[in-house]
Amino acid sequence: MDDQSYLQRLEDASAELARKAGSLLRQRFGNSLDVEFKDKAKELDPVTSADKDSQQLLKAEIGASFPDHGVLGEEDEDEGDAVSPEYLWVLDPLDGTTNFLNGLPVYAVSIGVLHRGVPVASSIFVPWPSDSGGVVLHAHKGGGCRIDGEPLTINSREGPSSNRLSGLPGSFGAGFRFTGGLHKRAGEPRVTGSIAYEMALVAMGSVQYALFGGPKLWDVAAGVLIVAEAGGQVMLRPKGSRGWEQTLTLAPGWEQKAPNLKDLRRWSFPVLAGDSLVIPSVAANLRRRRPSVRRRFAMLVRKLKSSGKRKNS
Amino acid sequence: MDDQSYLQRLEDASAELARKAGSLLRQRFGNSLDVEFKDKAKELDPVTSADKDSQQLLKAEIGASFPDHGVLGEEDEDEGDAVSPEYLWVLDPLDGTTNFLNGLPVYAVSIGVLHRGVPVASSIFVPWPSDSGGVVLHAHKGGGCRIDGEPLTINSREGPSSNRLSGLPGSFGAGFRFTGGLHKRAGEPRVTGSIAYEMALVAMGSVQYALFGGPKLWDVAAGVLIVAEAGGQVMLRPKGSRGWEQTLTLAPGWEQKAPNLKDLRRWSFPVLAGDSLVIPSVAANLRRRRPSVRRRFAMLVRKLKSSGKRKNS
Repeated sequence: MDDQSYLQRLEDASAELARKAGSLLRQRFGNSLDVEFKDKAKELDPVTSADKDSQQLLKAEIGASFPDHGVLGEEDEDEGDAVSPEYLWVLDPLDGTTNFLNGLPVYAVSIGVLHRGVPVASSIFVPWPSDSGGVVLHAHKGGGCRIDGEPLTINSREGPSSNRLSGLPGSFGAGFRFTGGLHKRAGEPRVTGSIAYEMALVAMGSVQYALFGGPKLWDVAAGVLIVAEAGGQVMLRPKGSRGWEQTLTLAPGWEQKAPNLKDLRRWSFPVLAGDSLVIPSVAANLRRRRPSVRRRFAMLVRKLKSSGKRKNS
Repeated sequence: MDDQSYLQRLEDASAELARKAGSLLRQRFGNSLDVEFKDKAKELDPVTSADKDSQQLLKAEIGASFPDHGVLGEEDEDEGDAVSPEYLWVLDPLDGTTNFLNGLPVYAVSIGVLHRGVPVASSIFVPWPSDSGGVVLHAHKGGGCRIDGEPLTINSREGPSSNRLSGLPGSFGAGFRFTGGLHKRAGEPRVTGSIAYEMALVAMGSVQYALFGGPKLWDVAAGVLIVAEAGGQVMLRPKGSRGWEQTLTLAPGWEQKAPNLKDLRRWSFPVLAGDSLVIPSVAANLRRRRPSVRRRFAMLVRKLKSSGKRKNS
C-alpha cells in the first residue's frame, strides 16, 4: 500500500484537485472585484460560500476515487466519535478566508493526505501573477517537491539573514521573542494571513522561515510535507514537550490507536517551517513570552511599595 | 497649464510608463524563479539591477516627452542644490525591493507627478493574479481613479471593522499603539513590505487603512492621489504639527519657494491612508509610543528603591 507508485497516484490526484478548487476560487475572487470593484455587498454571497463550494468539490471527488479513505475538512460538521481510516485527506478548501473576502490575492487550497498520521502526499494551490494566475506545489513522501510539474528545491546558502523575509503571526510581539541576538538576523517580517500560502513561500525559498503559533491540522498537513520534500525543515512543539521536535509525524499516537476525527479537529501545535540552514537557529532562540512587562511591572510596584511600608512601620 | 486635458495627458503618460516598467519587472521576477526555482545566486544580478533599469526606462521617456519637467527617483544620485521645476515626476521604479529579490510578488512601480508640491497625476503598477499578471491604477486630480481604464471607487459602508484588513509597519508594536478601544476594531494586521502596493490595496478596498511610519516622497507621491481620487482619505503628520492633517499638499512651502531636490529627497512624514469612514477614527486613536515599558519600569524601580533608602536612613 505504501509503495511509491501509490503515493505518486495520491500526489497526482491531490494536485489535480488543488488545481480544480483553485480555479473555482479564482473565478469567485474575480467576480467580487469585476464589477468596477464596487457593489461588494451584492456580490458577497457567492464569495462567502466559496470555501463551502470548494470543499464540496474536493470531498465529492475524493469519495469517488478513494472510497475507503477518510476526509477531514475545515468546513465539515463535527464527526462525532468516528475513528479515522488509515488514509485521511485533510482539507483546507480556502485558507486565508479574510484575505479572500477582502480581495487580497493571498489565499490557498491545502490538501494533505495522511497515512496513520504521517503526511504522504500533498498539494497547495496559490494565486500567482503567472500566465495561468496560479501555481500548484505538490509532493509525495520520498519523491521530492514540484511546482506545476517542475522540480522545486530550496536553495539554502546561509543561516538567518537580515536581507530575507520571515513569516510571522500578526501577534508575534505579544506571544514570542528572540534570544541570542537573532532579532538582528531574523529578516524582514511579513504577515500574510494564510498559513498554507506561507508554507508555499517557504518551499519556493521566498521566506526563510515561517512561524505559526497555533495552526489547525488542515492549515499545515499539506505544507509540512511540501516544505520537507523541497529540502526544508519542519519542527513541531507538541504539548508537554520541552522544545521543538523535527518530525513529520503529526499524530504520534496513531501507531498505537487510530484517533477520532473529533480529536484531530482539535489538533493545534506551534509549527516552524523553513530553510534547513535557518530553522535550527530560530528554534534554539525562540521563546514564548512571559506575562506582559506591563503586568509584571504592576506586580513588582505593589511588592516594592508594600516592602517599603513594612520597613517604615 | 493646470487644465483637465493636460492632467489627463499626464495620467495617460504615467499609466503607460507604469505598465512598461511593470512588464520589465515581471520579466525579471520570472527569470529569477524560472530555473526550477534554483540557482538563485547565478540569476541574482539581473534581478538586483531591475530597479535601476526600471528607473532608466522611466527617466528616458519622461525626459523625451516632458523636457521641462523634473524627475526625482529613488535610485538617483544626489542632485546637489538643483531647484525643482514646477512639475516634478517622483518615481519609485521598484517599491518592495526585498520582496522582489526574494521572489514574493508584492511590489510596485510608483509614478507620481507633483505640480508645485501637489500630486496632480499618478499611476501604480502592481503584480496581480489576473490574465495579464498585473494591473495599473491611475488617476489625475479631479478625474477619479481607474484600474486598467475602469472606474475604481472605495465602497465605504462602515467604520473600522475587525473583519477587514489593515496595513501596518512590521515595527507597529514598537512605534505606535491604539487608544479608545480601537484595537478591537483595528482589523487583521498585514505586513506587506511595499508602501505603494498597500496604497493600491487601499484604493481597491482590500485594506481599510494603511499606516506608514516614515515613508519617503517616492513611496507615497502616487498613492496619496490614487487613494483620494478613489474616494478614500489621506492624512499626513508634518513635523512640528500636533496631529494628523487631511491634505494632499506634500510640500507645503512650495508656494513661497520651490525646494531643492536634495530637500525633497530627505522628505519623510508619517502617512495614513484608507477608507474615508475609517481614517478619522484611526487618526484620533493612534498614539506614538512613549519610551518602552521595560525602560520606564527600570527607571521607576530605581526611583522607588532610592526613595526606600532615603526613608530608612
